[in-house]
Parts: sequence; C-alpha cells; structure tokens
Amino acid sequence: MKDERILELIEQKNYIELKKELSDMNEVDISEILEELEQNTSLLVFRILPKDVAVEVFAHFSAEKQEEIISAVSDKELKFILGELFFDDMIDLIEEMPANIVNKILTNSTHEERVLINQFLKYPSHSAGSLMTIEYVELKKNMTIQEALAHIKETGLSKETIYTCYVTDNKKKLEGIVSLRNLVISDSDMKVGDLLHEEIIYVETHDDQGTVANLFTKYGFMAMPVVDKEHRLTGIITFDDIMEVIEDENTEDMQRMAAMTPLETTYLDSGVLELSKQRIPWLLVLMLGASVTGGIITKFENLLSTYAILMAFIPMIMNTGGSSGNQSSTLIIRGLATEDVTLKDAGKVLWKELRISLLVSVILGLVIYGKNVLTGKAGFMVSLTISLTMGVIVMLATIVGGMLPLAAKKLKLDPAIMAGPLITTIVDALALVVYFGIASTLLF
Amino acid sequence: MKDERILELIEQKNYIELKKELSDMNEVDISEILEELEQNTSLLVFRILPKDVAVEVFAHFSAEKQEEIISAVSDKELKFILGELFFDDMIDLIEEMPANIVNKILTNSTHEERVLINQFLKYPSHSAGSLMTIEYVELKKNMTIQEALAHIKETGLSKETIYTCYVTDNKKKLEGIVSLRNLVISDSDMKVGDLLHEEIIYVETHDDQGTVANLFTKYGFMAMPVVDKEHRLTGIITFDDIMEVIEDENTEDMQRMAAMTPLETTYLDSGVLELSKQRIPWLLVLMLGASVTGGIITKFENLLSTYAILMAFIPMIMNTGGSSGNQSSTLIIRGLATEDVTLKDAGKVLWKELRISLLVSVILGLVIYGKNVLTGKAGFMVSLTISLTMGVIVMLATIVGGMLPLAAKKLKLDPAIMAGPLITTIVDALALVVYFGIASTLLF
Repeated sequence: MKDERILELIEQKNYIELKKELSDMNEVDISEILEELEQNTSLLVFRILPKDVAVEVFAHFSAEKQEEIISAVSDKELKFILGELFFDDMIDLIEEMPANIVNKILTNSTHEERVLINQFLKYPSHSAGSLMTIEYVELKKNMTIQEALAHIKETGLSKETIYTCYVTDNKKKLEGIVSLRNLVISDSDMKVGDLLHEEIIYVETHDDQGTVANLFTKYGFMAMPVVDKEHRLTGIITFDDIMEVIEDENTEDMQRMAAMTPLETTYLDSGVLELSKQRIPWLLVLMLGASVTGGIITKFENLLSTYAILMAFIPMIMNTGGSSGNQSSTLIIRGLATEDVTLKDAGKVLWKELRISLLVSVILGLVIYGKNVLTGKAGFMVSLTISLTMGVIVMLATIVGGMLPLAAKKLKLDPAIMAGPLITTIVDALALVVYFGIASTLLF
Repeated sequence: MKDERILELIEQKNYIELKKELSDMNEVDISEILEELEQNTSLLVFRILPKDVAVEVFAHFSAEKQEEIISAVSDKELKFILGELFFDDMIDLIEEMPANIVNKILTNSTHEERVLINQFLKYPSHSAGSLMTIEYVELKKNMTIQEALAHIKETGLSKETIYTCYVTDNKKKLEGIVSLRNLVISDSDMKVGDLLHEEIIYVETHDDQGTVANLFTKYGFMAMPVVDKEHRLTGIITFDDIMEVIEDENTEDMQRMAAMTPLETTYLDSGVLELSKQRIPWLLVLMLGASVTGGIITKFENLLSTYAILMAFIPMIMNTGGSSGNQSSTLIIRGLATEDVTLKDAGKVLWKELRISLLVSVILGLVIYGKNVLTGKAGFMVSLTISLTMGVIVMLATIVGGMLPLAAKKLKLDPAIMAGPLITTIVDALALVVYFGIASTLLF
C-alpha cells in the first residue's frame, strides 16, 4: 500500500524521498493520510508539500485538522493558503471555525476579501449562494477567440473551472456561456459573441441546493451560473461540489426517514453522545405516540378476553400495515426528492395507490385466510375478521403512506419525516380501531 | 412557459418559427416535450431539428420513444443517428430494444461497430464496462502541445469529453492523462509527455458502478479511464453518466430498504401491476414472518389473562424496538453504500452501538417508568417490567440493527435488505420473548 510507504518514509525521516512520493499522489489521498497523523508530524509533512498541492490538501481536510493547521502556521503561511483557496472552500472554512480562528483568518485577509466574505456568509445554508465560488472565467462578447484563449491562458490557473466561460455585459449581467470546447475547435478570428449560447439554465442565489442538484443530474452540466435578482452573475457552482451535495442530501433523507436528526459528519466520525442525541428525541415521540395504541387495547379488553385468539394477530396486522405504508411513503418521498413527483401529481398518486392497495389487500387477505384455514388455528368468523382487517388496513396504510409526504410538502415540511416510523405509529392506531371494529361487528 | 409556446407553434404548423425556438433549447427539454407528443407529431418535430441536436434529443428519449422513432425512420436516417450516437448511449439503446429493433440497428451498423457492440454487451450490468464510452481523446507522449491541440481541434467535436485526454503507448496501455486545462495554459512547444500525469486513478471493466460512483464523489473527477486486465485503455466514464448512476443507486437502495424490489423506471411511469409486483412478495414474507410473534403470544395466553394490562404495552414495546433497530441499520446501510463504513469496522460499530444503546435504553426506560407512575395506569411491578423490557429490547434492537447489514455484506448480500421492515419482524419476536420472560420472572 502507498499509505504504508508514506508512513515508513516519515518514520525514517527520509524527507527527500517523501516529497517525491507525495508529489505523485492525489490531494484527496494525501489529506486522508495527514488526517491520521498527530499534529506535529502532519504539520511537518504539510510543509514539505509543494505550495499549490498544500492548499488543495488543506481544502480537503476535516474542520478539526484545518483548525489545527491554522493555529500552528505563521501569518505568512496562512496568508498564502487563504490567497490560494477557492472562495467556496474559504466560506466553508469560516463557517466551521471557532471565533478565535475566524479572527485569525479575517486579520490575514484583504479588505476586499472581508467585504466579499461578509456578503457570502449571508446566504442561507443549503442555498445555491452558499455553494458557489467566484473563480470563473469571464469573457466579453466582442473578444476574438484568440483574445479569449489568451485571457484563459493567463488567468486559467486560478479558476475553479475554465471549461465553461461566462459572458457578461458591462453591468455584470449574464449574457450567456461559451464552452472551452467550442473555443478550442473554432477559428481563432471569430468572436466570442458568435459562439455565445444565450438560452442557458441558471439558478438564483437563494435556490435550494436540492433543486440545483436535480438540475445538474437532469442536464449533466459541469458547472452552472448563479445570478442575483438583477440577473447579475454572482458565482458558479461546479459538479464536484454538487456530487457531495447529492451524497449528503441522500444521507440526510435516509436519516430523517429512519426518524433521526441528520448527523453533521460520517457515522464513524460521530461521537456516541452525538449519535444518541440524534435518536433519542424521535424515539421518545414515537414511544409516547404508541401509547395511544395501548389505550385502544385497554378499551377493548372485554372483546380480547372473550376472543383471546384475536390478540395473537395484532402484531401481524400492525406490522403488515406498517410495511405497506412504509412502501408507498418511501416511493413518494423519493419521487419528491428527485422531482419525478410534484405536488400537482397528488391526484395521480392517489389513484395509483388506490388501485395498488386494492390489489395488494385482496392478495394478502386471501393468503392469510388460506393460512388460517389450513392451520386450523382460527375459526371461520375469526379468520374472516383477520382477512377483512388485513385488507382494509393495507388499503388505508398504503393511501396514508402515499398522501402524508405530499401533505408535508404542501405544508413546506420535509416530506422525509413522513416515513416508516411515523407512518407505523399512525397505522398501528388505525389498525387496532379497524380490527376491533370489524371483530365487534362480526363476532357478536 | 416555453413548452406551451412550442405546442402552440406545432398546432399552428408554424415550422419556421418552431425550428428557431427549438434551436435555442436544451436537448433534455426538447426530448421531454417530444416525449408527450403523439407518434406522427413527434416524428415531424424530430425531423425539423438540426441533425446534431436530433441525435442528442434521441439519446435522452425513453426506450418507448426510441423504439417508436427507430420503427418510423428510414434506414438512411437511422444510419445517421447510429453513427453520431455516443457508444455508451448506443449500448444502452440496444439493451433496451426488442429483437426486431435490435436487428434493424445491427443491419444499419458497420462490421466494426457490430464487433464492438458484441464485446460491450458482454460486460455485466452495473459494471464499469457497461457505463463506459469509447469517444475519448487519445494522445501520444511525444506529441507537442501544438500538435495535441490541433488533434483535439480536428477530432474534438465527436468526443464525449475533450477536457481530459488519455495518453497511451503503442500497445494501447494507459500511460497517464493530460488535462485540456494544462494543454491550454502551457507553452505550445512543450511535449505532452512533460505534462503527463502518471499516478492516476482508474477502474477496471468489471468494477461495480457503486464503487466507481464513490471514486467520482471522493475525488471530484470529470471523467475516469477504464482499463482491462492488461491495463489497456478500453473506455472512459464521464461524470454526467455517474450522476445518473448515483441517483438510481440511491433510489434502488431506498426501495430495497422499504422492502420493495427496485423499479425499472420512475414511480409515475410505472404501471399499477408493476408497482404491486414490487411490493406483494415482500409483504407476504413479512406477514407470514410475523405469525411467529402470534405464536409467542398464544403461548403466554395465561400470563396475559392474569395481567391484562401487559397487553396494552405490546405495541409500544414492539414499535420502539423496531424504530431503534431501524435507526442503527439505516446508518450502517448508508455507511456501507458510501464506503464510509467497511467490514473491517464491524468491531468499532459494535462497540459504538453498544454504548449508544445503553444510553438510549436507560433514558427510554426511565421516561416510560415516569409516565406509568404518573398516570397510575400500571402498578410498581408492572411498570418495572415494562421499563426493563423497553431497556433490554432497545439495546438488542440497536445491536441487531447495526450488525445485520454488516453480516449481509459479509455474505455478499445487499445490506439494504437488512433494513426497517425485516429488522422489525425479527425485533418483534425478540421483544415478546424478552417481555414475557421478564414478566414471568417479576410478576409470579
């Protein structure tokens, strides 16, 4: 393994060979190795890195490691890092650091940088504005291709991407984009304006990052421009940052769907206290919510003591109902997240789930009827009661599961909370009411 | 809306204006509009499109629309489409089409294309080989930058990406990559070999698409080379295809986690029968699995008839246990999918979940004890029974939930099936055994 070779060279203090090995490596991998080293050693290796590599490695560090490095480096070193860091990484950094480190960063920034930082910190988290960076290539319509390429050659090294270039007018209003591909394959005396792509898809600073991610996935864009309300270009978002957003949004959705508050970091990096805190409040709500079902059972104690066999089927009815509701709610939550389903599809969803639930409930009802008759565990009327209940509750659960995420969306809540655990709690209470209602009617 | 304007122009048969409007639009949007039109109209509009746009629009069509178009166009038109289609889209197309359409495609392909198609169809679905395309820029070490740029200018239009170029030796072995960025900003008399980045990250044809997606997310790559066992370059994968893979993999995981067979297409595009088929087998398994809990209840009928109050807490205990198990299994399933958690972390996970479950179970046990005492619903010993059961079952469920996905991974099963619904069924049975065990001990 490469990692072991690196650790060996550090051990041997063979810094010349170390520098050589590191220079070939991907910055993400270097940052992973340094992350594991203790403070002094990692600072030493960090300082061995070529300066441009060091900055990229720094951008990939965890907040803890970044704090460690900033505390340890000189003002001169810090100034260099801050100067080279892409602006979106700079904003991420400032948002993560404690006050004393933020102070150190701000004192080592220029006045212009501080003004920009203040402006960017105002964008809501999870908005397009909070993801964008300002290192893009800006061209003018009347430039020739040759001039444009010369401009890119001169400034390209410090840009987040040079593959899509942005054309603005003298008021900074976004006029369109030109791809480097088109610049490279076109005649050098043509004008940028001739290659201009004007009907472009852009986002506004306050758009939600989930919406931005869906646009990237839909169109396969490498970068997207972000404009303010006056259609002035304020930044760009690149696909690599969006890939992280997509991963994070999916992780967060899954955590919410399992009744947990989303974690700040990965599972293994989270502490026991943090992991407990994300779970306990939800479990308390669900546990106390489930006491409703207990109340219903107590109310029907007489029925249950006459027909003790009814008891035995309560878990099965509640479980199957919960699972059906979980299935439909999962499909709708996911559909809403990928924007394949929208609020105006509510009628379609209802109609679809109605038909599905009818089919599913008939089949489940028949199977459980068959099983009860074959095993001879329950008499005719009890078997009928159970099958009917199963049918009705699967229908109800499927429809409730399909509709609640849409209702949440309508109320501007996160649809992901209307998932399995909450649905189960609701369906459980419904199931008992239906069960005892049917039993009371049929058995007395 | 743009869409309405387009439909209006079609209605008015104003094809000149229509052509103009369409020429500004993104291909993805055009394909969405055509998707909704009936066969003859969509074919008419498809033929109005500039040829290069038409091919891109075609690539974004659903399989049904592609079949419709291929059936309708002339051999000459089909030859053009096939010639311009990127190879990965061509393979996707062939995989989706019925036999008669595949025949029409193959008769309109060249001999070389047919050989390549046959080779590519052999890669397993969900492998890197099934995602890659062959339209990449290939450079040689001894080219000058000027020669390289001239080569790109000449061939670039037909390449999936020109932003990363691949350097191979005369046996097609991959030697490294050069970015267009570096080519553009370097002196034109330097050699490609001088800019060569040799320590690159690549995948092999049989690597799983999930692994490939994780590499893209981790490193933020725009494209990745795919090599065969002899390290020969066989194709490249681009980020836009990976974004779709990520979305699909997440959707599939969520569907499996909710006990459903993954759908082939989106929720709204799936039929009622299809949606029912993905749910029914799982529900049957879960329903019949839940009959175990029924058996346990029947066994302890005497206990329940003596202490009727015990009944009322069964749903709460089962539900809270199920939710705890669902929480930990979700975290581990997601961790395994993003490769933040691996099999060798099993010990760490166990130790973490043990401590979390201890904390959670103490708190839940105390809260439910307090509630029972305050409401005076249950006596001291019954309250103690319930709290102890709650504590034990939350611990068991959390650990079972954390461990089962790892066990599935170890057995090369998909960890996503070890989620909520299955965990709930297992935990329900455990919960009853623990509950009645503790009750029998404490109450008699």
